[in-house]
Amino acid sequence: MQYSSDSINKVIDYFSSLPSIGRKTAQRLTYHILRQPTEYVDKFAQSMTEMMQHVKFCSVCLNYTESDPCPICQSHKRNKNIICVVEDPNDVLALERTNEYFGLYHVLHGILNPLDGIGPEDIKIRELLARLSDVDEVILAINPSVEGEVTMQYLSKMIKPLEIKVSRLASGLPMGGAIEYSDEATLSKALESRITI
Amino acid sequence: MQYSSDSINKVIDYFSSLPSIGRKTAQRLTYHILRQPTEYVDKFAQSMTEMMQHVKFCSVCLNYTESDPCPICQSHKRNKNIICVVEDPNDVLALERTNEYFGLYHVLHGILNPLDGIGPEDIKIRELLARLSDVDEVILAINPSVEGEVTMQYLSKMIKPLEIKVSRLASGLPMGGAIEYSDEATLSKALESRITI
Repeated sequence: MQYSSDSINKVIDYFSSLPSIGRKTAQRLTYHILRQPTEYVDKFAQSMTEMMQHVKFCSVCLNYTESDPCPICQSHKRNKNIICVVEDPNDVLALERTNEYFGLYHVLHGILNPLDGIGPEDIKIRELLARLSDVDEVILAINPSVEGEVTMQYLSKMIKPLEIKVSRLASGLPMGGAIEYSDEATLSKALESRITI
Repeated sequence: MQYSSDSINKVIDYFSSLPSIGRKTAQRLTYHILRQPTEYVDKFAQSMTEMMQHVKFCSVCLNYTESDPCPICQSHKRNKNIICVVEDPNDVLALERTNEYFGLYHVLHGILNPLDGIGPEDIKIRELLARLSDVDEVILAINPSVEGEVTMQYLSKMIKPLEIKVSRLASGLPMGGAIEYSDEATLSKALESRITI
């Protein structure tokens, strides 16, 4: 794009470096931003640099936070005897949205992936094991991919000997999902884990 | 999301204000950015504020540019007797990607929309009419929506009396498109504009 402006191209490059944003979407977003008031764009930019300055990891659960420990780990309303283990801070948001979980979290910041050389030392497993005194149950809320299954098996093998209950999220049909359009793996899992009514 | 950090929420809000970015995508993008090096994020933010400082409108074609006139209007390689009229700077990018057009552009920054109260004075039509001495052809490259058709008819009525050729982009089947899956409007347009071979 020889005729395009350098400073526009730079912003397009940054946007297309984000996940799920292709070149054309990045162009559309950049041109949208150009149409906004300068003040608004300056505040947008500032919000990003400020986020990087203020946000750190909670020393207990390793989720992103501005205060340490994070509001969830600090809260008196949360049940400190249950820890829900997730791969990513994103997953904490998703579980909080359910309004059904009132225990604590532990963010692994990754899952085991032998093919990519990601072993137990590369994710926050040591930090999890150090938190397990006084804990009654560990819920493994990890995506049911091949690597996720490996991670859950590994964690369960480490935690069960401590006489702590280890559970995982149920697999089955998504609510509102149609049997006709379900993939085989989901359907056989739903069949296998069928519930007596 | 009572447990989420304020400065993270601010960035999520800004991202979800962008077109085609929903709340969940905005969360995913924000968490992706949090995982990047601070230096990278600072540069991303800086690129946005710098773009707002450096980019202005070309005084000739009204496209975004850092130099005035813009590189296209300045170029000796472009045919100054043809002007391609577009709604948006985005459309200039798309036409430049074809590598088939070597005339100049004129960006209207909008199209006529009587229902929304957008009349000829609200878009850059006056500026277009002021450029038409020495011009042989005006190509109307405006999206074939109802408002686009109205805009093209209006412009054609204004320009034709000046004895300048006015043309518009062909409508028909997109390349690689399947007749079976074409909508009726496109198919009847393709039939109506059929070409003798």
